[in-house]
Amino acid sequence: MAAVADDGFRVLDEEALVEYIKATPALRAQLGEQLDGLTIKEVGDGNLNFVFIVIGSAGSLVIKQAIPYVRCIGASWPMTKERAYFEALALKEHGRLCPNNVPEVYHFDRAMSLIGMRYLKPPHIILRKGLISGIEYPLLAQHMSEYMARTLFFTSLLYHSTSEHRQAVAEFCGNVELCRLTEQVVFSDPYKIAQYNHWTSPYLDHDAEALRTDDTLKIEVADLKSMFCERAQALIHGDLHTGSVMVTSDSTQVIDPEFAFYGPMGFDIGAYLGNLILAFFSQDGHANKDNDREEHKRWILRMIEETWNLFHQKFVSLWNENIDGHGEAYLADIYNTPELRLLVQKKYMTDLFHDSLGFGAAKMIRRIVGIAHVEDFESIVDESKRASCERRALDCAKTLLKERRRFETICEIISVVQDFSAH
Amino acid sequence: MAAVADDGFRVLDEEALVEYIKATPALRAQLGEQLDGLTIKEVGDGNLNFVFIVIGSAGSLVIKQAIPYVRCIGASWPMTKERAYFEALALKEHGRLCPNNVPEVYHFDRAMSLIGMRYLKPPHIILRKGLISGIEYPLLAQHMSEYMARTLFFTSLLYHSTSEHRQAVAEFCGNVELCRLTEQVVFSDPYKIAQYNHWTSPYLDHDAEALRTDDTLKIEVADLKSMFCERAQALIHGDLHTGSVMVTSDSTQVIDPEFAFYGPMGFDIGAYLGNLILAFFSQDGHANKDNDREEHKRWILRMIEETWNLFHQKFVSLWNENIDGHGEAYLADIYNTPELRLLVQKKYMTDLFHDSLGFGAAKMIRRIVGIAHVEDFESIVDESKRASCERRALDCAKTLLKERRRFETICEIISVVQDFSAH
Repeated sequence: MAAVADDGFRVLDEEALVEYIKATPALRAQLGEQLDGLTIKEVGDGNLNFVFIVIGSAGSLVIKQAIPYVRCIGASWPMTKERAYFEALALKEHGRLCPNNVPEVYHFDRAMSLIGMRYLKPPHIILRKGLISGIEYPLLAQHMSEYMARTLFFTSLLYHSTSEHRQAVAEFCGNVELCRLTEQVVFSDPYKIAQYNHWTSPYLDHDAEALRTDDTLKIEVADLKSMFCERAQALIHGDLHTGSVMVTSDSTQVIDPEFAFYGPMGFDIGAYLGNLILAFFSQDGHANKDNDREEHKRWILRMIEETWNLFHQKFVSLWNENIDGHGEAYLADIYNTPELRLLVQKKYMTDLFHDSLGFGAAKMIRRIVGIAHVEDFESIVDESKRASCERRALDCAKTLLKERRRFETICEIISVVQDFSAH
Repeated sequence: MAAVADDGFRVLDEEALVEYIKATPALRAQLGEQLDGLTIKEVGDGNLNFVFIVIGSAGSLVIKQAIPYVRCIGASWPMTKERAYFEALALKEHGRLCPNNVPEVYHFDRAMSLIGMRYLKPPHIILRKGLISGIEYPLLAQHMSEYMARTLFFTSLLYHSTSEHRQAVAEFCGNVELCRLTEQVVFSDPYKIAQYNHWTSPYLDHDAEALRTDDTLKIEVADLKSMFCERAQALIHGDLHTGSVMVTSDSTQVIDPEFAFYGPMGFDIGAYLGNLILAFFSQDGHANKDNDREEHKRWILRMIEETWNLFHQKFVSLWNENIDGHGEAYLADIYNTPELRLLVQKKYMTDLFHDSLGFGAAKMIRRIVGIAHVEDFESIVDESKRASCERRALDCAKTLLKERRRFETICEIISVVQDFSAH
């Protein structure tokens, strides 16, 4: 068994995990008190944590433990294990707001940085893998738009009083180390020479260099970074890419909100849509003579379009349903005619659309030239082909980021994506 | 002596104050341990607190005590006395950053919501009263631009790391009740029917009503309110009008930062410049056959122009001096050419200028139709004359608020103000 630190923290191996579960009533209960012959499998394929699937004869669960450094780098990159606290908080809050799309938390142990939560059974797989395999999910746009609309609306000043809001903002200010990781890998490293940056070399050498000398782009990125650091608009997931979503044909579950904090809504929406666009651009690299992937590409574009449009519709519906609530951004006494309400909503949603495009594009860029790449591209073995897919995505992202304010509808974005795909 | 509440709080009268001072070493020391025959005078002419000037034979000080309601309204409008804690924090932080323009704090007692601080001796008077009297202060623009540049720059992400920043933001989130007061009286009440709204009636009845039906204005005000509630740009004073500044010909002291929190910088700059503009528009109401006030009006306009221009210059100088510091908004590795730095600074300062105009205009409007008016206008006895001054200020403010994004320089603002003055 691992040594216990002063603060009560110890990294659990499988044996220690069994002892821990046996000693924890909330976890025992989920396993129906049947604790003999548990099957335990470590599956943490992310960049940061240990994740154990625990299956017994009468139940199952997942144990996620944060360790005090970035797992994919090692002890040389320390990272607070307090992130587990914020992950548990966000899972509970988002789960309360959208229970159908967030796994239930059974147990949280702050000293151990350990969360016990629902095991998302097969055939649940990571959405990113599904997209790479060319699988379509008929309810995906419905579910993801619902998740984003509910979690973002109900934690914004459209629903919160400013008292509730500032209290929650203060609590999540504590998740600063994870915010700093995002600041570095999304808004800084791709635009400078940085130790862990990499790209499909030599093909993209010039493209990577071009980012570092693109003044217009860097000015826009600074704006986005300021918004990320300063604007407490809603409780965002903070890392809502397609690897943070598990899916089956009828279930969509959002996991891993350890980057959660009060930030700009567009960061979540953009992360998700931007990763769908990356999935789109990667498809040509997965085409073969049996499957040209054209149908899957069309489906991904439809997903992008439907997700935004459904999000827009659901978000505005929530707004209208709560127009006389305690939300303090737009008091009913002041924004008191249907015409004015429409004007205000149009402006709000257009600003949010532009923010989402900016953040989405920044997330695309960092996945091509930064530290952490996406399997959508990495799994394309032919480097020349991969680079060609990546370059289209990169060029598309640069256009979206720089020119985002000229777009009004998601249809226009689909056209831009298609234009870059045909290049 | 007043009854002591469970939390140790009791409102001090003069007698109790003497006992308190005798029992408090830091205060005794300021009075040179000469505690007999103290002269005590209550001078709280603001809306919220008790303020005692204490003068002994060997020293002096001021005692400010917050009470748990809005003094000018009474116990029917409760207001946390914790505001004294945030006032003391802000006085210390802003005092550290700009010691020449912030009075020293000798003692803070959280349970008693009591601050002991430097007495700003005569001839110090409230700037607003000086402006009404037609007095000119040769160093005012120099001092106020210095105060704003230093307090805002050093508490922003241009100087802070994001770790420092989020920690400080979280602390000041606790000052939510005072923020809510601002939200109500600045961004809400003037645009709806509200209990304590008043204006020079019947002259301005139509003007007040026009605010409540001006959709363009209300949309812009919503934007400013969101920025106020969501954007943690710097530690702002939060109530930087000309009644929060005490002056002599060679001293400028900023007092009363009980509304301090991490908010948009433009709120402070706008509050100050907006109140100078109010002072300008009020001058015609103070003119008489001996003094047409034209020279004083020109001086106030010069103050507005110089304050912004000096602020701009000092703020950018601080930025350049700290370009290789630990501020994280614009990393030196990325914003690495003089040309790019210039572009970035130009954009930042232009955005800040527009924010300042918007907030300044909102502060002007609320002083004419909201709960708390300014002595600049209130001291004009002839109601018709007063209303005429107020209307010009109001119309000017509406233009500045709605059209702020088309202005680039403070000269243009001076022209707008002059145009409305000639109406």
